Amino acid sequence: MARVAILTGFEPYGGRGINPAAEVVKRLDGSTVTGARVVGRLLPVSYAKLGSSIEALLREHEASAIVSLGLWPGEKMIRLERVAINVADFEIADNEGTFLTDAAIQGNAATALMATWPVRAAERALIDAGIPARVSSTAGTFLCNATLFQFLHQLEGRRRRVPCGFVHLPYLPAQVAELMRDLHRERQLELEQRADVASMDLDTMARAVRIVIETCLTLPPAP
Amino acid sequence: MARVAILTGFEPYGGRGINPAAEVVKRLDGSTVTGARVVGRLLPVSYAKLGSSIEALLREHEASAIVSLGLWPGEKMIRLERVAINVADFEIADNEGTFLTDAAIQGNAATALMATWPVRAAERALIDAGIPARVSSTAGTFLCNATLFQFLHQLEGRRRRVPCGFVHLPYLPAQVAELMRDLHRERQLELEQRADVASMDLDTMARAVRIVIETCLTLPPAP
Amino acid sequence: MARVAILTGFEPYGGRGINPAAEVVKRLDGSTVTGARVVGRLLPVSYAKLGSSIEALLREHEASAIVSLGLWPGEKMIRLERVAINVADFEIADNEGTFLTDAAIQGNAATALMATWPVRAAERALIDAGIPARVSSTAGTFLCNATLFQFLHQLEGRRRRVPCGFVHLPYLPAQVAELMRDLHRERQLELEQRADVASMDLDTMARAVRIVIETCLTLPPAP
Amino acid sequence: MARVAILTGFEPYGGRGINPAAEVVKRLDGSTVTGARVVGRLLPVSYAKLGSSIEALLREHEASAIVSLGLWPGEKMIRLERVAINVADFEIADNEGTFLTDAAIQGNAATALMATWPVRAAERALIDAGIPARVSSTAGTFLCNATLFQFLHQLEGRRRRVPCGFVHLPYLPAQVAELMRDLHRERQLELEQRADVASMDLDTMARAVRIVIETCLTLPPAP
Repeated sequence: MARVAILTGFEPYGGRGINPAAEVVKRLDGSTVTGARVVGRLLPVSYAKLGSSIEALLREHEASAIVSLGLWPGEKMIRLERVAINVADFEIADNEGTFLTDAAIQGNAATALMATWPVRAAERALIDAGIPARVSSTAGTFLCNATLFQFLHQLEGRRRRVPCGFVHLPYLPAQVAELMRDLHRERQLELEQRADVASMDLDTMARAVRIVIETCLTLPPAP
Repeated sequence: MARVAILTGFEPYGGRGINPAAEVVKRLDGSTVTGARVVGRLLPVSYAKLGSSIEALLREHEASAIVSLGLWPGEKMIRLERVAINVADFEIADNEGTFLTDAAIQGNAATALMATWPVRAAERALIDAGIPARVSSTAGTFLCNATLFQFLHQLEGRRRRVPCGFVHLPYLPAQVAELMRDLHRERQLELEQRADVASMDLDTMARAVRIVIETCLTLPPAP
Repeated sequence: MARVAILTGFEPYGGRGINPAAEVVKRLDGSTVTGARVVGRLLPVSYAKLGSSIEALLREHEASAIVSLGLWPGEKMIRLERVAINVADFEIADNEGTFLTDAAIQGNAATALMATWPVRAAERALIDAGIPARVSSTAGTFLCNATLFQFLHQLEGRRRRVPCGFVHLPYLPAQVAELMRDLHRERQLELEQRADVASMDLDTMARAVRIVIETCLTLPPAP
Repeated sequence: MARVAILTGFEPYGGRGINPAAEVVKRLDGSTVTGARVVGRLLPVSYAKLGSSIEALLREHEASAIVSLGLWPGEKMIRLERVAINVADFEIADNEGTFLTDAAIQGNAATALMATWPVRAAERALIDAGIPARVSSTAGTFLCNATLFQFLHQLEGRRRRVPCGFVHLPYLPAQVAELMRDLHRERQLELEQRADVASMDLDTMARAVRIVIETCLTLPPAP
């Protein structure tokens, strides 16, 4: 039976009509990477449902690699997270209106969990492929961080050692175009005050995520 | 006889091995846009030769549109210049070692010249096509600004009214990847201190420049 | 009779309760710099009244130096403008609701006017004093640029050669603190999406503007 | 006997001649905050000596609050760290030439430790005082993070519950002025490529750190 690589992304949120994470998941779902089948799954932007969605996914598939994707508005390159912290502290509400401040994700859990993927090797493989990438030491404190924390926490509980990590993606060009159109239309905020106008095209993002999955499937998980 | 659209770009400079402007010119050279033939030309990164290169181009072709391209390290989107100022003030030397400070480009010329292309319509067309774009009020004071100034100045001398403008392009992804590799290798400068890590893929850039040429060929030049 | 240095600033605008330009003007109004009396004046954030306010000021005082101040949200240092362009293109309305797009400031005037102050000497004097400063090639296309353009245009009409320039100032720290409080309260925009959170304290700004005025009074105007 | 608040800063590093952290420590050392005496101490920029320096400090003083300071080039405001991760991953060498990549700080320790200071209250107090401030979820992976980790780890070992945190400071204005002078002199890097040109004056920084210490002394440590 073929190996499986789980790839998750989020539905659109924060009033945006599109999410690059979802687009990449749709693009790669069902494809084959290094002999493994990519199982793509869109997670709802719901903090409350996150834990059970992830639990169901882990029950369903004995994955050989787990890579989750999320949008980081303003990010300029492929950003590879090395750690998830046990903090939920939102700047905007999730799609169900949940708004948390300085909360713990799991009451009796570690302060932080290290991502178990070969993050440095993934960074190197991306740069060698001509794709801008960097290792990051913070996945924020919104649902992206919570997703990585939940995956790592539940994998620990199941005593499963599998490469598991999180990729933050920039906006798609069309999203920034939309943002520029709104700036013109609404005239509410000057461009110089915006830090979130970088973007990356879907092809490059999809290529990057394939390389990341490949690296996870090829190299042993971090100790 | 078919109409001609002149498209110029620069050769690599500043120690970089590649220039997105040159790549887009190579990609579009010889193609047809709105019935016009695109004549692509690479300009040397030489301040001394700029005037004569441009003079030769204008003598050679009775162009219906003139669009020049250049790299702006750190730029995040397609940037359309509306004005060129009569100032040459370099931060780095050109490829021949010329280094100017607070100099005038042309002794007896205007302080600045307005680009004669339909810059706002081009911006709108790009945004409608999902490509991030903005109108800019400074083309800097290096060779990009000098190119636009020379084109506009010489067109004035020839009493030719033709849409003429300048597009600043972001880095290509591979250039930022190279920069990240160097940051790792040399360990001389921390990432947080770099502002020039945004990029845009060649396909989107080439598509953008086609749309810009199209707009120039379709709309009358600015008054 | 003592020489006079005109120093202008703007009243608050854009929904902000304070303007660093106004604060510096209030601080320096009536003081003496290099034997000259500083005449501080607050200009209304009204495009319609700009021309006549400046005309009145020039009629009233035979100034030996003219320095205008304005806020540039997001700016990180003292920014010295070298040129004003004949363009009014607003991103927000002025305090009277006037909103212009791609308009000329003066119908039969030059495309741009060079500031007549010793801008490079001012930059050097600031840096030597330990104050971050830079020469800028765009004053934007809002009222700051229009103020510099009007001053230079009217001085030309009066055939007066006097050092005249424009300083863009960062936010005051208290303004960014207010912005951070609002971000928390309204939860509408994530911090990572804001580019305008740098600031500079009033003492440093006032010291900088004194040095700039001093440089203007000491050195001959640019040719 | 009076209570003691430990305040640490670093000596200059990375080729810089000055460190705002050291300046603030010198300014506040020996002063009294809320009845407590501030004991300022400069730590060497030496990863190897960090643990023993901190151990000595904790042996020497039964502190009621511990606040450490460090420079973050490019930071625009007072940045309050909420967590330290068990990672040492340098971008530049420390002052003794030590250069670590993806190393653990402590072999048998937690992945991360939560700072035990009332970080949110400190942020609020700063903003109420008109000082731009924010809570951060990453202290980086250089000596600043290692210092916070070591303090928290050793306090755990001693079973001492005391408010302990880390403040990242922007550059001083004079440092950015120096940087601008070097950019001019060396002409190696264009300004647009630099992200580290924001600054904050020493008075505001010192005032901020006093408020932070005050908050730590007044409120109970985080659970």
